[in-house]
Amino acid sequence: MPVNAVGREIPSLVGGRHLVPYKGAFERHARGWKVPLPLKPTSYAPDKMVSSIDDSFDKCGITHGACLSFHHHLRNGDHVINMVMDVAQKRGLKGLKLAQSALFSVHEPIVKMIENGTISSIEGSMNGPVGRTVSEGKMHDLAILRSHGSRVRAIHIGALKIDTAFVAAPIADVYGNANGREGKSACGPLGYALADSRYAKNTVVVTDNIQPYPVMPPVISQVYVDWVVKVDSIGDPEGIATGTMQPTTDPMRLDIARQTVELADACGVIKNGFSFQAGAGGISLAALDFIREKMKKKNIKAGFAHGGITGHIVKMLEEGLIEKILDTQSFDIPSIQSLNSNPKHHEIEPDFYANPFNRGQLVNMVDLAFLGATEVDTDFNVNVNTHSDGYLLHGIGGHQDVAAGSKMTVITCPTHRKNWPIVMDKVTNVTTPGETIDAIVTEAGIAINPLRDDMIEMAKEANLNVIDIQDLARIAEQKAGGKAPEPNYTDRVVAIIAYRDGTVIDVIYQVKK
Amino acid sequence: MPVNAVGREIPSLVGGRHLVPYKGAFERHARGWKVPLPLKPTSYAPDKMVSSIDDSFDKCGITHGACLSFHHHLRNGDHVINMVMDVAQKRGLKGLKLAQSALFSVHEPIVKMIENGTISSIEGSMNGPVGRTVSEGKMHDLAILRSHGSRVRAIHIGALKIDTAFVAAPIADVYGNANGREGKSACGPLGYALADSRYAKNTVVVTDNIQPYPVMPPVISQVYVDWVVKVDSIGDPEGIATGTMQPTTDPMRLDIARQTVELADACGVIKNGFSFQAGAGGISLAALDFIREKMKKKNIKAGFAHGGITGHIVKMLEEGLIEKILDTQSFDIPSIQSLNSNPKHHEIEPDFYANPFNRGQLVNMVDLAFLGATEVDTDFNVNVNTHSDGYLLHGIGGHQDVAAGSKMTVITCPTHRKNWPIVMDKVTNVTTPGETIDAIVTEAGIAINPLRDDMIEMAKEANLNVIDIQDLARIAEQKAGGKAPEPNYTDRVVAIIAYRDGTVIDVIYQVKK
Repeated sequence: MPVNAVGREIPSLVGGRHLVPYKGAFERHARGWKVPLPLKPTSYAPDKMVSSIDDSFDKCGITHGACLSFHHHLRNGDHVINMVMDVAQKRGLKGLKLAQSALFSVHEPIVKMIENGTISSIEGSMNGPVGRTVSEGKMHDLAILRSHGSRVRAIHIGALKIDTAFVAAPIADVYGNANGREGKSACGPLGYALADSRYAKNTVVVTDNIQPYPVMPPVISQVYVDWVVKVDSIGDPEGIATGTMQPTTDPMRLDIARQTVELADACGVIKNGFSFQAGAGGISLAALDFIREKMKKKNIKAGFAHGGITGHIVKMLEEGLIEKILDTQSFDIPSIQSLNSNPKHHEIEPDFYANPFNRGQLVNMVDLAFLGATEVDTDFNVNVNTHSDGYLLHGIGGHQDVAAGSKMTVITCPTHRKNWPIVMDKVTNVTTPGETIDAIVTEAGIAINPLRDDMIEMAKEANLNVIDIQDLARIAEQKAGGKAPEPNYTDRVVAIIAYRDGTVIDVIYQVKK
Repeated sequence: MPVNAVGREIPSLVGGRHLVPYKGAFERHARGWKVPLPLKPTSYAPDKMVSSIDDSFDKCGITHGACLSFHHHLRNGDHVINMVMDVAQKRGLKGLKLAQSALFSVHEPIVKMIENGTISSIEGSMNGPVGRTVSEGKMHDLAILRSHGSRVRAIHIGALKIDTAFVAAPIADVYGNANGREGKSACGPLGYALADSRYAKNTVVVTDNIQPYPVMPPVISQVYVDWVVKVDSIGDPEGIATGTMQPTTDPMRLDIARQTVELADACGVIKNGFSFQAGAGGISLAALDFIREKMKKKNIKAGFAHGGITGHIVKMLEEGLIEKILDTQSFDIPSIQSLNSNPKHHEIEPDFYANPFNRGQLVNMVDLAFLGATEVDTDFNVNVNTHSDGYLLHGIGGHQDVAAGSKMTVITCPTHRKNWPIVMDKVTNVTTPGETIDAIVTEAGIAINPLRDDMIEMAKEANLNVIDIQDLARIAEQKAGGKAPEPNYTDRVVAIIAYRDGTVIDVIYQVKK
């Protein structure tokens, strides 16, 4: 079997699909043209309102084997995927492809639809129960995992062809203009649905909040929308926006956050006008607090912060520590409110933020990013998709994109979780290639990628606890009390981990129960 | 010669181009696909800055026969078209196609470039000297006139293929994000350049104001920009935004404005939540004042106002008489300031506003529009391009789009200008078909299109001065002291007036000097 640039064996043909092995993070420069957009003239204001989701299936001609797409801004509060797929199931449709940007635990009803053949393939992120079902080999065809930027790329070049895009919209008008900013199901940005709405053959806006024309800004535009459906509720606010997210208080994790910020500072990253991306995890939020302190002490201001946004970043904007927020996804109520009211808080779309096949991505302009991992290995390869038992339980998010773009990418993680090491010789699956990772920060020290000898030198000069990655793996194994048990696989590939350029960085095998 | 649906003879073939005669305002419903967008991956942040416009010609490979596009937001203050075309001329390029959204008097240097063959064809609006040159037959190939919406349509379907789009940007960053809102050359919106930036093979941002990354909102996005050039000045603020525009004080024109508003009111249009489009001419601004009075008296609020925006509309927004402004072009300083500071003042692009080949256009949601004319005829056909002597002196703007979309479209004009009638039996050229025009309001009375017998009835009931269009033409001729002299044409077609769907509504012949 051909071996790719991170040492993984990649079968040439899986389920009728030819796989191109990953060749390196910056090796593929496709040229040519995107797939054309559908042309659908309307001379008059048509009546786009349809009475039900069921009706929209007729209008869009959805039949067996169709590819239906969804976005994940409503996160674990989303009602729309289940509602739409329930209609599909009741209509007896089979062999559908689900092309969501992400699934959460709330989408557990999808499991049954996979088992009964309503859904036969998935291209999108899976968090939790659906991923487990795929790992167990219960889906007829393949799952394909892509990063945020890669998903837009795939839609643009026709690798992911969407028949009908369903856009869950917290506010919309009768002509199809929509955004995520207002209404009982407000979720902030709506950009993950944007490429879908443009490139799908048909686009349906599903809303619980019709307002007078025109809803502004038209993040989803009338120009691309065919039909609008009013339903009672598109989501549960409790699951959409968690009230407030909290930094870790665990001393070990706090130490990781502190070391991460010390590393960035030692390497000269935290300076006036710098930019950063931070997530919503406990370590990331704690690291933000340390950055904030450092910025105040230095009396400097960041140019911009990007990411899934939390109230912690909003607070820094309001304190004048950040010039602009660029928001692809709101994680909590304060960030939704800030997007609505603060002119320095901007919504951006994933094409702008991460698509490697366009002429400019935000990730390329980010100075510092800290990301998580389920596993990292001595080649600095990172796994965020599977656990050490081989189960597919998480999506890629923007992991590959940010790591490839950001000038400094730091993985923050403990050496182990319970009795499974996180740092190891070889990750169960590679999501993000080591060449795009600059450092791993753990409670047992900082491992810096040998490609960055400049960083190693600066970190040592600052007396940081720099440790060889091999030593770190040994410590992790000791602390965990041994290696994790090997996954028990069949020889069937159930999922492909695409790299952001469309090559295959790894495949996931079926797990024997 | 085939005769089109407004009775004009349309040659089948002109300059190697097959012409499709206009068949009716709502007859053409093209299906299929738009032309694909170019795919240009960049994995790293590339250096997009080039040292000069001359340099950008090399980077983009601009050669003989290339199509170069420009936008007109800087209006009569624009420096960029002349600067770029001067480079083209100095490089000895020949046979270029100029695809500007509009030209003004400031672009008189273009005349020489037409005469010496640097430019051999133009697809875009021409106001003034360049139009005159085309009329006199001095350009080698054809000119094509299109409306705002039609221009986007033509770009989307590949009827207008742009090699390099030059975007004059009042503020931009090094990665190509740009808008028109700030800087010494601020012009407000920048949307007329949007389709160009997306569909051109190469896109060059020309700016006199580089600011830290990222310039937000990215009306022109890094995602589509190849190169950025910094120049000393992209425009003259005096010519970009005229200080303040004034309503007419001429009693005859004031009377036209008053009658227009009385007509709209008699027909039940001026009610809570209604929407309107008004231009920047003296009669339009006076009509706005009358609408404002009426709204205050009725204690109602408009849903939205759209258009090229002036301080008069901004004032109504600030007074709470309008819910939202949708702005495609700012005409003065107060409207630029309002776009920057008032969250109810939104920038929109011409695709959203007027492209007949998409799934939804703003013009279809407009209740009331008042437009101007150089001539109108007894079939309610309107000419806005040529004067009665046959000279091409004006662009179409959004005239066709708004007339086709708006529920009530009123042409406001005096019966005559000096000794040339404006209302007549047959216009010199048809720009906008009579079937999309609801009424002509003049100082001598209101002529209502027989297609709108509902309006005729309501106007008569309100005791308005309703007059037959034939009678109006006779009065116009009497007042002018006769007909205008017939234009003296050669048999060569120099320009095509495209309808918004791409069919040909009229052709313009060369004028004998």
